[in-house]
Amino acid sequence: MKYVRIGEPGNESPAAFHEGKFYDLRSRFDDIDPAAIPREGIGDVTAFPVLDMIGKRIAPPIPKPSAIVCIGMNYAAHCAESGVEPPAEPVVFYKHPNTIVGCEDEVQIPRGSVKTDWEVELGVVFSKQASYLESEEDAMECVAGFVVANDLSEREFQIERSGGQFAKGKACPTFTPLGPFLVTPDEIADVQNLRMWSDVNGEPRQASNTGDMIFSVAHIIFHMSQFMAFDPGDLLLTGTPEGVALSGRFPYLKAGDVVETGIEDLGHTANPTVQA
Amino acid sequence: MKYVRIGEPGNESPAAFHEGKFYDLRSRFDDIDPAAIPREGIGDVTAFPVLDMIGKRIAPPIPKPSAIVCIGMNYAAHCAESGVEPPAEPVVFYKHPNTIVGCEDEVQIPRGSVKTDWEVELGVVFSKQASYLESEEDAMECVAGFVVANDLSEREFQIERSGGQFAKGKACPTFTPLGPFLVTPDEIADVQNLRMWSDVNGEPRQASNTGDMIFSVAHIIFHMSQFMAFDPGDLLLTGTPEGVALSGRFPYLKAGDVVETGIEDLGHTANPTVQA
Repeated sequence: MKYVRIGEPGNESPAAFHEGKFYDLRSRFDDIDPAAIPREGIGDVTAFPVLDMIGKRIAPPIPKPSAIVCIGMNYAAHCAESGVEPPAEPVVFYKHPNTIVGCEDEVQIPRGSVKTDWEVELGVVFSKQASYLESEEDAMECVAGFVVANDLSEREFQIERSGGQFAKGKACPTFTPLGPFLVTPDEIADVQNLRMWSDVNGEPRQASNTGDMIFSVAHIIFHMSQFMAFDPGDLLLTGTPEGVALSGRFPYLKAGDVVETGIEDLGHTANPTVQA
Repeated sequence: MKYVRIGEPGNESPAAFHEGKFYDLRSRFDDIDPAAIPREGIGDVTAFPVLDMIGKRIAPPIPKPSAIVCIGMNYAAHCAESGVEPPAEPVVFYKHPNTIVGCEDEVQIPRGSVKTDWEVELGVVFSKQASYLESEEDAMECVAGFVVANDLSEREFQIERSGGQFAKGKACPTFTPLGPFLVTPDEIADVQNLRMWSDVNGEPRQASNTGDMIFSVAHIIFHMSQFMAFDPGDLLLTGTPEGVALSGRFPYLKAGDVVETGIEDLGHTANPTVQA
């Protein structure tokens, strides 16, 4: 099932997407709360009223999480283009949760930025707390669903201006477009075999597959749960493949560009950029 | 004024501390919401009922923030003991907000940890959003108050197991004791001249002053607001001085220790440690 949220910031309402139509779930839920919605879906959504989407905003498919936990350097070819060795264990940093925007919202190029870059990533949303898990199987039982994310990154802020700590270039306002859908696990045949891509102004940038991850989704959740507790509703971003501007192969983003990210079965984001 | 929260997790109620007594503020506030409480205090609190504190827990003085933003390497002598050069600009990383505990709550030594360390830090709580501020004066207008914090850190997780990204050793459960008080700015004569200290089992560890910061509180807020937006209620930790176990001068924490941190005018934390 594809959960979705419709409406302006602060006034989002729950809906579902099925075969090209949006269905109004307000009679069933107050919001798309990853801790409360059934992770196997709610069955036939066509019994709910169809929404007229004209003039409506597709919001991020989850409310603001209590944390965005990000895995860095999780694709070997991206490590190579970034000039670093593949890590022996998952590398982690956090983004401010207030960076989340919808899949068609404006993305701001930060003031003073000359190196704003894109990163398509598989996002994982938690349905329950995950702490000191005992196995990778237990890890997947904590997943409410999956979402496509753009982990926008200002490379000068990230690499040159914070002693090597990534967070300074990751938490600029609007730097985490999400969605459109929170897709429940039953819809995904193999989370480690999903095509993923990004475009700028319709020209291809990244083109890879989640099968190229160094550490699998299940392993990341199991491993990180030994170092932290994921809360229900938290968002985990699992790293990006090669094909970003940092590689030197493409120009960085500028105001007026449209940046798109997509993952097979999860839909895609298409965000116009503006100067902050 | 000293705001405080009393009660078990999920059931905290607002109070004030004045000359050794706790006053019940439930008739005035639902909670200590940094976005809503007057940053100059509410005048004479002795008109409110005195609380019987027997058997009561002193909770963290703020509700769970939407982010904990941490500045690393902000005291020159701590940079030296850590073996790194002082930074040219503030270095930033984030902790998961679910790490916050009260000033007398148990702190967990993580499973597998052999290098759990303490860090006394001046915490700054935001009353309103801070984004692209124009001056350091504007920065201080966004402050709801100050709090003492222990930024507990597992040095092996932080330095050796995450490609140099600090967050892996910073977000273990219970790793951010706070309080007891949220102290309003009018009570602090000079935030850059406050004695600060930490003890383990009553033996001194850190002993410094906020005057030794490389980057001042006002500068950090102004500077970081160019790279992110602080939300109302967010917590900023401003770095720790020398005297941590990482220096090699002291043993790391073990279960059964009591770790204390304190800052002049802000009170102190005293947390017993247990094995996770």
